[in-house]
Amino acid sequence: MRAAVLRDGRMVYRDDVPDPTPGPGQVLVEVAACGICGSDLHFAAHGDQVLAATQSMSGSPSSRTSVDLGADIFMGHEFSARVLEAGPDTDTFPSGTPVTSIPVLLAAKGIEPIVYSNTTVGGYAEKMLLSAPLLVPIPNGLDLRHAALTEPMAVGLHAVNKSGVLPGETALVLGCGPIGMAIIAALRTSGVEDIVAADYSRARRDLATSMGAHRVLDPAQGSPFDTVKPKVIFEAVGVPGIIDDVLRRAPVGSRLVVAGVCMEPDTVHPFYGIAKEISVQFVLAYEPAEFTASLQAIAEGRIDVAPLITGEVGLDGVGAAFEDLADPDRHCKILVTP
Amino acid sequence: MRAAVLRDGRMVYRDDVPDPTPGPGQVLVEVAACGICGSDLHFAAHGDQVLAATQSMSGSPSSRTSVDLGADIFMGHEFSARVLEAGPDTDTFPSGTPVTSIPVLLAAKGIEPIVYSNTTVGGYAEKMLLSAPLLVPIPNGLDLRHAALTEPMAVGLHAVNKSGVLPGETALVLGCGPIGMAIIAALRTSGVEDIVAADYSRARRDLATSMGAHRVLDPAQGSPFDTVKPKVIFEAVGVPGIIDDVLRRAPVGSRLVVAGVCMEPDTVHPFYGIAKEISVQFVLAYEPAEFTASLQAIAEGRIDVAPLITGEVGLDGVGAAFEDLADPDRHCKILVTP
Repeated sequence: MRAAVLRDGRMVYRDDVPDPTPGPGQVLVEVAACGICGSDLHFAAHGDQVLAATQSMSGSPSSRTSVDLGADIFMGHEFSARVLEAGPDTDTFPSGTPVTSIPVLLAAKGIEPIVYSNTTVGGYAEKMLLSAPLLVPIPNGLDLRHAALTEPMAVGLHAVNKSGVLPGETALVLGCGPIGMAIIAALRTSGVEDIVAADYSRARRDLATSMGAHRVLDPAQGSPFDTVKPKVIFEAVGVPGIIDDVLRRAPVGSRLVVAGVCMEPDTVHPFYGIAKEISVQFVLAYEPAEFTASLQAIAEGRIDVAPLITGEVGLDGVGAAFEDLADPDRHCKILVTP
Repeated sequence: MRAAVLRDGRMVYRDDVPDPTPGPGQVLVEVAACGICGSDLHFAAHGDQVLAATQSMSGSPSSRTSVDLGADIFMGHEFSARVLEAGPDTDTFPSGTPVTSIPVLLAAKGIEPIVYSNTTVGGYAEKMLLSAPLLVPIPNGLDLRHAALTEPMAVGLHAVNKSGVLPGETALVLGCGPIGMAIIAALRTSGVEDIVAADYSRARRDLATSMGAHRVLDPAQGSPFDTVKPKVIFEAVGVPGIIDDVLRRAPVGSRLVVAGVCMEPDTVHPFYGIAKEISVQFVLAYEPAEFTASLQAIAEGRIDVAPLITGEVGLDGVGAAFEDLADPDRHCKILVTP
């Protein structure tokens, strides 16, 4: 079958990948759409760094992940699909049913995240394996391209849930890439009445407004904290220096949710945090219930993800799409439709 | 009157400080005892750094503080005292009543923290001013030397309250200086059933046990995280590197409370926090109700502070005491008894 794989830091088109075979409890599906995630771009560019950081850390289940950067790597974890066939002794939805799933494969050897792997095929492929117990049918005849946004929108919902933000609290979202957008959408559906979004890109600020931001700010015109005194700050930029800048400028008693993924070591002044009793909640991914809630919100029209989709490519266009995503004025989310 | 003041980085004895005069709403008191706090040692050594950090930060009320390091500075914020006389039109307790107070002076020009000041006298003096509405009488005939520990014990209680720790959760306290000890005591009075304390000093580990730690660990024998998987970690060390070490080794979903005061810039790997969804709560000081609760716990014998008091000096011994406190095996808390 056809697939796009990571090889030597670049996405390469292949038409000779063997079809995966579903084992017990697994279901072979045909991928309808798969979003390109910023973390995939980062892994393509800095895979060695990601693996080193993961291995130097204890206490995390993901510290067991082992990936050979010298061999082809499958990626793609924001997918929608249609059921093809179930593995042995496996009950599932009828063939053709539109489905999605959290990106996890239950296999005989254990739980495998569908994120980057030399063996477990992800959504940048014609077909992939999913786990029967984790399949979620896509309701309401929802466009499968929109359903592919379930995963990133769930990341935003999880960040908002972890923040404990209340409707009357001012929320500031720093960075309006896909995660910032998902946070804005989740804040809006959570009833937050003052959502302020900041990004250097005019196109992204406009997109933030259409996703539900009440006000947008250009950091080039001055720190957002000069204009707004937020109770909750969502950091969705993920570059060194941003956490310290928030600690320095945020109001007393504010809460910082770190949703941006900064892989580099970063410098902070603990004193700023101490003097203002700031809390910092690092967040990652989502709970299965948040994934389902996110799909439901999209299917019921409470979140309109259409404006976020700024491009669509085939499996042979993934390499070019990875490069195009570097420009924040041109793109937000590019879908791969095999 | 007599006092010890900070001059050119050293504590100097003076016998020519004018007696303070209470204004409306103020009360002149005779200091009975005043504990030497680590933050005073730090300010004496790095006052310029503290002031620069405070001024570079926005959003904090304390960023307005202005202190002239070239002039004598009064300090001492962990005090007990006896009422001498009230200012004009001021009702207060009878002369001789033993009292304490949060270290704040309400003055005509505004609220002045009693922490370091060129003008507002602190507890390293024979007499000082306090605010009538903030005075708390010391009950139960409590030893005024023990009552002087109310303030640092309140810091520990506040850190424990902010952590939201539950009785069944394992708590790890890193660093057994006075703040670590106060945290251990507050964890014990809060009913936490598994309190683990870590410190390189044998004497401090023994003291931690007497304050209520169920287990003590020597970090020289290996990381505490090799032995214990805490749900809540209290960082009471305050040196660069400790926050990152916690992020790297702490279990998934654990909560870090930063009670140590690291004034230097510090390096952290946000990725560790993200991968394990750690929350970091910076804490400072306490609420007035926590201050009162702390005094009550000491007066009722639920917290025995006597073992923490390892020395007692007069106002002319403050300079030497600041130097002695550098040795963790010799000292925990030294009281100044004017």
